Amino acid sequence: MIILNGGSSSGKTGIVRCLQAVLPDPWLAVGVDSFVDALPASLRACDDGITFAGDGGVSVGPQFHALEAAWRGGIAAMARAGARIVVDDVFLGGAASQERWQRALDGLPVLWVGVRCDAEVTAGREIARGDRTVGMAALQAEVVHEGVRYDLEVDTTRTESLDCARAIAARVP
Amino acid sequence: MIILNGGSSSGKTGIVRCLQAVLPDPWLAVGVDSFVDALPASLRACDDGITFAGDGGVSVGPQFHALEAAWRGGIAAMARAGARIVVDDVFLGGAASQERWQRALDGLPVLWVGVRCDAEVTAGREIARGDRTVGMAALQAEVVHEGVRYDLEVDTTRTESLDCARAIAARVP
Amino acid sequence: MIILNGGSSSGKTGIVRCLQAVLPDPWLAVGVDSFVDALPASLRACDDGITFAGDGGVSVGPQFHALEAAWRGGIAAMARAGARIVVDDVFLGGAASQERWQRALDGLPVLWVGVRCDAEVTAGREIARGDRTVGMAALQAEVVHEGVRYDLEVDTTRTESLDCARAIAARVP
Amino acid sequence: MIILNGGSSSGKTGIVRCLQAVLPDPWLAVGVDSFVDALPASLRACDDGITFAGDGGVSVGPQFHALEAAWRGGIAAMARAGARIVVDDVFLGGAASQERWQRALDGLPVLWVGVRCDAEVTAGREIARGDRTVGMAALQAEVVHEGVRYDLEVDTTRTESLDCARAIAARVP
Repeated sequence: MIILNGGSSSGKTGIVRCLQAVLPDPWLAVGVDSFVDALPASLRACDDGITFAGDGGVSVGPQFHALEAAWRGGIAAMARAGARIVVDDVFLGGAASQERWQRALDGLPVLWVGVRCDAEVTAGREIARGDRTVGMAALQAEVVHEGVRYDLEVDTTRTESLDCARAIAARVP
Repeated sequence: MIILNGGSSSGKTGIVRCLQAVLPDPWLAVGVDSFVDALPASLRACDDGITFAGDGGVSVGPQFHALEAAWRGGIAAMARAGARIVVDDVFLGGAASQERWQRALDGLPVLWVGVRCDAEVTAGREIARGDRTVGMAALQAEVVHEGVRYDLEVDTTRTESLDCARAIAARVP
Repeated sequence: MIILNGGSSSGKTGIVRCLQAVLPDPWLAVGVDSFVDALPASLRACDDGITFAGDGGVSVGPQFHALEAAWRGGIAAMARAGARIVVDDVFLGGAASQERWQRALDGLPVLWVGVRCDAEVTAGREIARGDRTVGMAALQAEVVHEGVRYDLEVDTTRTESLDCARAIAARVP
Repeated sequence: MIILNGGSSSGKTGIVRCLQAVLPDPWLAVGVDSFVDALPASLRACDDGITFAGDGGVSVGPQFHALEAAWRGGIAAMARAGARIVVDDVFLGGAASQERWQRALDGLPVLWVGVRCDAEVTAGREIARGDRTVGMAALQAEVVHEGVRYDLEVDTTRTESLDCARAIAARVP
């Protein structure tokens, strides 16, 4: 199992696609974005679920946490059943988010990867993408890495997704 | 747990969104489409994975089956962890597909729902959608229901998604 | 030239795709949605451009009107240059919106088509789509038709997109 | 008017969004992709229209050329009506494509911008995007610039979209 953590617009999804292309075995790509899409529309706009503020702020409530825990357990079960899985997540809780994954994945081998990008560059990419609230990248850039321990860190500021993926793939047993 | 089965363009996704809106508790929506999107691009175009023919035919190979089994086990684990989950799937194998879910979900309460639609109407909706290979709906319309046993069947030919969802919701304990 | 007018979620886009499929000649599909997507992000969230309120309300300002007039003139020029064009629009201004098109298209033959749908059914489809603000359909259902004169009206409440398209195609010279 | 020309995955769309953000006046973004989307589905898969080969090759036929000429004339009319327009295109015909625009835009001031990117880098970004046929970028990288004359060239290999946009904006009167 590979878990990528990084702020919005840091380039995780592109790295995941490249990882799937360069790794010799088939890996499933699972992201927190797909979990959010699986929520009822009502939970995607309320304090109990997840809210996206106009300034890019994201906050989550108790229903989100409960469902996310079940989802995380399900991903762990897929891995225990033999699937190779690469997760991209945004550790809004920093070290606490990592601990939640560690508990769910107890005993499974994990390669922890931090995805970083200079704040100014990320802000520009956010504008270029056109599908994210401007400001989200800046708000998440540092906080998601606080207290998190990685096996490997990549920086997309000046390194292409494919090269980041190759560096990660070299660490997969 | 609710499992909806029906051919391409029969209206499953619309029903799922309406179910999430009318059910009082939050339900996660999980579909086989999201599983296919999670596969490496290479598996989405090879005999070992899944292939989409120009005439709308879909065939799957051993790698697809192996990963799908792990995915199915993961969905079951999410449900066992307390998440309410509505799945939309296309039982390409008919009764055999249902048996695979039954094995994975052993002991969990499931509401089995068949989603039907007249072949001619489905073919028209396929054109109106514009994002599916024309012919897929016709090829799947009957075969996905062969030998499958349902608690409830809905027909989107003349019933709106929201009304189908209400009929299903009325059967949820 | 064919111009379809109807409220949000009344089914215009599906009819347009079916029209392109059933008409023997190639027709370009152009919609007000593509015009809105062409605007700078800043104009898609300010009074000067276009604003989408949380209740589904849409309002447009002077910059929107100025650019839309230029866009409308460009569509007219494409038609004068020989392209067959089917436009789907939402006449937020009712008869005034139609007059703006009439001025732009001066001299060009136009088939005016009204697309209607029962308010309750439209509201359900809005939920099933999942990508529109709930409430927009209800707010637009009647107002977009006020004072507008049509060559033909179709109603998607109980008629499929493909059948609506066939009825329209039968009126194309 | 600003016209950006570059191969697939060279980064044109990101630059366009950044241009819309940094230019003080509102600019409409119009791309050849939106024109292709406006074609009937049947023309998007036939020799008469446009075909996308499995190796990334793109070829266009007489119907495509005829409709594209009308579309180009319409864009010119929008500009003459006062709209500021930034076009992103792929000059599959190199200098001949530029001449077609020049004829359509006769008399209008145009800033011609070439968008380049190292072939190897583009190929990697194609994988990271995941929504383009792998190989298209390599096939188009050089040919689209053959014989084309620019006011300005930008290279996205090591320059961010936002910085490219600023360089272009500095040349807009």
